[in-house]
Amino acid sequence: MVHRVAFFETDAMGIVHHSNYVRFLELARIAWLDEHDRPYRAWVEDGFHIATTALALRYRAPARYDDRVAVATWLEWVGGVSLAMGYRLESEGGLVAFGRTEHALVDREGRLRRPPRERLTALRALAAAPPPPRRPRR
Amino acid sequence: MVHRVAFFETDAMGIVHHSNYVRFLELARIAWLDEHDRPYRAWVEDGFHIATTALALRYRAPARYDDRVAVATWLEWVGGVSLAMGYRLESEGGLVAFGRTEHALVDREGRLRRPPRERLTALRALAAAPPPPRRPRR
Amino acid sequence: MVHRVAFFETDAMGIVHHSNYVRFLELARIAWLDEHDRPYRAWVEDGFHIATTALALRYRAPARYDDRVAVATWLEWVGGVSLAMGYRLESEGGLVAFGRTEHALVDREGRLRRPPRERLTALRALAAAPPPPRRPRR
Amino acid sequence: MVHRVAFFETDAMGIVHHSNYVRFLELARIAWLDEHDRPYRAWVEDGFHIATTALALRYRAPARYDDRVAVATWLEWVGGVSLAMGYRLESEGGLVAFGRTEHALVDREGRLRRPPRERLTALRALAAAPPPPRRPRR
Repeated sequence: MVHRVAFFETDAMGIVHHSNYVRFLELARIAWLDEHDRPYRAWVEDGFHIATTALALRYRAPARYDDRVAVATWLEWVGGVSLAMGYRLESEGGLVAFGRTEHALVDREGRLRRPPRERLTALRALAAAPPPPRRPRR
Repeated sequence: MVHRVAFFETDAMGIVHHSNYVRFLELARIAWLDEHDRPYRAWVEDGFHIATTALALRYRAPARYDDRVAVATWLEWVGGVSLAMGYRLESEGGLVAFGRTEHALVDREGRLRRPPRERLTALRALAAAPPPPRRPRR
Repeated sequence: MVHRVAFFETDAMGIVHHSNYVRFLELARIAWLDEHDRPYRAWVEDGFHIATTALALRYRAPARYDDRVAVATWLEWVGGVSLAMGYRLESEGGLVAFGRTEHALVDREGRLRRPPRERLTALRALAAAPPPPRRPRR
Repeated sequence: MVHRVAFFETDAMGIVHHSNYVRFLELARIAWLDEHDRPYRAWVEDGFHIATTALALRYRAPARYDDRVAVATWLEWVGGVSLAMGYRLESEGGLVAFGRTEHALVDREGRLRRPPRERLTALRALAAAPPPPRRPRR
């Protein structure tokens, strides 16, 4: 997933505000589900949400307006009602940040809900090590 | 309602990003309801939302990080299922912006829903001309 | 420009929060400049910003998570240091909103700054009537 | 610092979107500086920014529209050009989240910049263990 930085994502330091990276991770997660598992809206239609329970980000270099930020995304592990994902964000200039999120599978009221065994098995088969680096080109 | 500008509300021009003023209007509207009518959450508990159907903003001078922006707020008119509000935003430096929003009263599914007559009557009694200017002090 | 609605753009009414449409207009404006004039970053590199001085939006139907919102964008007029743009937002379900923004050409300190005559002439040649409707397909 | 949850901070799960907690931490940090050290704008006027270099959040229970979220904030440690802060977020219902941020002291161009010795000494004297829990009341 390559995200082009919007002007409204910058702040008065002239760089992307650190809170917006959390949104980049969400966009990357949604794109990962599209490509590897099934669209998030299909999870929602089945009555699930993939709620975020933990978040870690380490910022290495700022991204700026109009930068292309490539987010490498991988599934770290899948439990019975939880999972973790990893992220590495790179721009043309190199490493921007890396991140990690943990999630709980919940129903529409936010209660933990175990998906059917075959869905968990399919997800688990996708758990992987981080992919090798690649940089976006403009 | 006086809003203190957060750093995350600024952009790479060094000023508040214009989209954030729409959120300042929402904060001002919520504060107006608290003070003059009833809390918005009471409307929600009764099954209503006050959906925004139109928005206009005219920007006169930029607000910056840590500025105090005072939002004068008034109810322009109330129809059977709609209403309009006006806003004037000022900082220590003078006029920042003025705005206007229109709203529809809807149920949780977003369908137009007329409130009880006494609620409309109470709201209509609050319709007013713009208040005189006043500037926030730090 | 087609924008895919992110989950973080929704609110507790289950629809896109009205403030986010202002950001969709910015994305559409940037895409329009890319395609028709020159990238916004080229304006910035030349010392200009295209500051927003007025905004109007009329909301007709809500967009929801994962909707594709197509934004038709056109340049209404160009003055010596100002311009106006129009927008029509449509999803698969039909008209979502229409909008209008006005802008001032300013320098990095926010003072009005007139661009070279040839740049204004080039921009003026792009002023156009609204394009005919078209709906995004998923 | 007590933050009242805005409607625009909620998402289609009916709860505060997880990205917004990062902004609550910033508001809490700014309030902590006001109360204990000096206003962030004074740092900025002296040519410093306190850039965020790492972020961790663990979400325990969702906050919702109009909740009052109290953020207990403390300074964990201060190095020569860096510092770390801790946060515990509570609503009337109990623990909402806890968080931690790390920061670098930088100049306006984002380069590491060591503050005068007396500023560091003053900051270090403020490093503290987490304060005891307290819950906001509406």
